[in-house]
Amino acid sequence: MSELRYDVAGIGNAIVDVIAEADDAFLIANGIAKGGMSLIDDDRAAELYGKMGQAIEISGGSCANTIAGIASLGGKGAFFGKVRNDQLGEVFTHDIRSQGVTFDTIPAVSGPSTARCLIAVTPDGQRSMSTYLGAAQALSPADLDLEIIAASTITYMEGYLWDPVEAKEAFLLAAKTAREAGRLVSLSLSDSFCVARYRDEFRRLARDEVDLLFANESEILSLYEVDIFDEALTRVKADCKFAALTRSEAGSVIVANGEVHVIAAEKVPHVVDTTGAGDLYAAGFLYGLSRGKDPVTCGRLGSLAAAEAISHYGARPLKSLAELARAKGLAL
Amino acid sequence: MSELRYDVAGIGNAIVDVIAEADDAFLIANGIAKGGMSLIDDDRAAELYGKMGQAIEISGGSCANTIAGIASLGGKGAFFGKVRNDQLGEVFTHDIRSQGVTFDTIPAVSGPSTARCLIAVTPDGQRSMSTYLGAAQALSPADLDLEIIAASTITYMEGYLWDPVEAKEAFLLAAKTAREAGRLVSLSLSDSFCVARYRDEFRRLARDEVDLLFANESEILSLYEVDIFDEALTRVKADCKFAALTRSEAGSVIVANGEVHVIAAEKVPHVVDTTGAGDLYAAGFLYGLSRGKDPVTCGRLGSLAAAEAISHYGARPLKSLAELARAKGLAL
Repeated sequence: MSELRYDVAGIGNAIVDVIAEADDAFLIANGIAKGGMSLIDDDRAAELYGKMGQAIEISGGSCANTIAGIASLGGKGAFFGKVRNDQLGEVFTHDIRSQGVTFDTIPAVSGPSTARCLIAVTPDGQRSMSTYLGAAQALSPADLDLEIIAASTITYMEGYLWDPVEAKEAFLLAAKTAREAGRLVSLSLSDSFCVARYRDEFRRLARDEVDLLFANESEILSLYEVDIFDEALTRVKADCKFAALTRSEAGSVIVANGEVHVIAAEKVPHVVDTTGAGDLYAAGFLYGLSRGKDPVTCGRLGSLAAAEAISHYGARPLKSLAELARAKGLAL
Repeated sequence: MSELRYDVAGIGNAIVDVIAEADDAFLIANGIAKGGMSLIDDDRAAELYGKMGQAIEISGGSCANTIAGIASLGGKGAFFGKVRNDQLGEVFTHDIRSQGVTFDTIPAVSGPSTARCLIAVTPDGQRSMSTYLGAAQALSPADLDLEIIAASTITYMEGYLWDPVEAKEAFLLAAKTAREAGRLVSLSLSDSFCVARYRDEFRRLARDEVDLLFANESEILSLYEVDIFDEALTRVKADCKFAALTRSEAGSVIVANGEVHVIAAEKVPHVVDTTGAGDLYAAGFLYGLSRGKDPVTCGRLGSLAAAEAISHYGARPLKSLAELARAKGLAL
C-alpha cells in the first residue's frame, strides 16, 4: 500500500463557469430547464452566450469545486480533469493550483476548447446550467495517476463523468484502484437529468462500487424512481455504507453504517447564487470523513461550506473554510 | 454635420481584468505599488499570475468601463479598442456588446494576446493593478470610425492611451474630428504614474484639446506639480471649460464655465473593491452632460455610478444605473 498522502482524489469535468444574471423569462425564451444542467454543443454555446448579459468567468466543475473546497478546509487534494492549452484552460489550471490542489493532467493540444458552463442566475439565487463539454470529453484512463488514487483516503467522482465516453472508463479504473488499495470510493449523482440519463448504471455503481454516495432530494428520488424521500432513504441504506442526502434549506440527512442522522442547514443572510452548494457540501463531508470525524460533524462541515458558496457568485470558496470551521467550534 | 446618434464615443485599452484578493504583504513581496497601475510584460504577467490566488475574470479597461456605464444609464455609447481573436477577446467583446455598446473594432489575428490587468484587491477595498497591454497596443488611427466620432456628443479618452504608441495618434485624430464636428473632447488622466510619465503632453492636451477633464486628487496635483488641491483647481479652471475632480469618500469638485461646485460622495455600506470608481464616476458625469443636465446633477450621477461599482468585485455595473438614478430622484 502506498504511503498515505492525500485526503481526497477527485475526477471530474474541468470547466470554467460563465455566470450572468437572468430572469425566468430568459430561461423560458431559451428553453433552459430551471435548476438543471443541460449539455450543449459549440453552436448552441455561441448562440446562448450571445444572448446572455455581462458575465464573469470563474473556475468551476462540480468535482473540481469540491476538491478546491477540501484544500480550503486545510486538506490535501488532487484533481484529474482535461482542459485544452487555451486561455480558459490556463485560468482553470491557475485557480485550482492556487488553492494548493495537485493538478497535473496534461492539457489537450488540439481539438475542442476548454469546457464552459453558461450559468444563468435568477433573482431567487437559483442557477440553471448549459454546459459545453469541449476538451473535458478527452479525459481517459491514461490521464489518471494511479499512485495518487491509491494514496488517497477517498476517491471522489461526479456523475457527470458518465457523459464523456472515455471518462467512464477512467472512473471505473479509479474505483478499482482505490478499492484494491483499501480506500473509499465516493460518487455524487450530480443532477437529476444526469440520473435520468444513466439510472441503471448509477444504481449498479451505488450497490457495487460506491462506499459514500452524495445526492440531493430530486436526484435520490430519481435514482430509485420513488416519490417519497423516506423510501429512497431505506433503499440507499441497503446499498451504501455512507450516504449524504442534501435538501437545500431543509439541511441534510446522513446514512452512516445503517444509522440515520439529520443535520440542519447553516443559515445564510442573503442567498446570491446557489452554484456549488452541493459541491461544497461534499467538500466538508469528505474532508471530515477523511480526518476520521463522526458523521454529524462531517454533515455540519458540509453545511458550513455550502453556506459560504451560496453567499456569493461562483462555486469556489472565497473565504478560508478552515477559519470558518474553527469559528464555529468545529475542530479540524 | 452627421446626424446625432451617440452620447459618448470612447477610445481606450480593451482589457480583461483578473481579480484576486491579496494582502499588503503580497504587494510588498511582489513590488506592486498600492493603488497604482504598472505596465508589465508577458513574462512578468505569467510570474505574477502564478503567485496570485483564485481569481475571477471580468471585462474591464478604464474607458470601456465608462462606456458600459453610460449604456447602463440608458445612454448610447460606442467604444474603440483592440483585442485579439482569442478567448479573452471574445469575453471582452461579448460583455461590452451585451450592455448595448457599439463595439466593432476588428480584432488582431496575430501578435500578442488580449490585454489583461492583474488586480490585487486588499481587505481595505483598494486595488493595485499590473497591466499586460498585449493586443491593446495595436490600436491605430485606422481602427477609428470617424463618422461615429463626429456623431457623438462627447468623445472620451483615457490617459492610458499614451502608453501604446499608435493609440496616441488615434487619440489626436479623434480629438480633431470631434472638434471639427463641433463636439466636446474629454480626457481622464487615468493614474498618477501615468501623469508622471506624460506630464508635459497632458498639460498641453488639457490646455489645447480638452473641454472636459477627469482626474482624481493625486493625478491633478501631479499634473500641475502642486501640493495643494486648491492651487490645482485654479490651474484647471484656466485650462478647461469643464473638469471633474474626484476625491474618493470626500466626493468630487466640479469646474463648469469658471464656476466651482462641491458634490458629496454617495454612501456605500461596504466597500468591496474600488476598481472602476473613477471610470463609473466619469460615466455618470458624461451621460448627464450629454443629456444637457446641470453640473451638479452630472456630479451626482457620477457619485451614484461610482458607489455601485465599488460595492462589488469588478468595475462594470451589475445593477441598472438608470434604475438607481430614478430611485434617487435623478430624472434622466
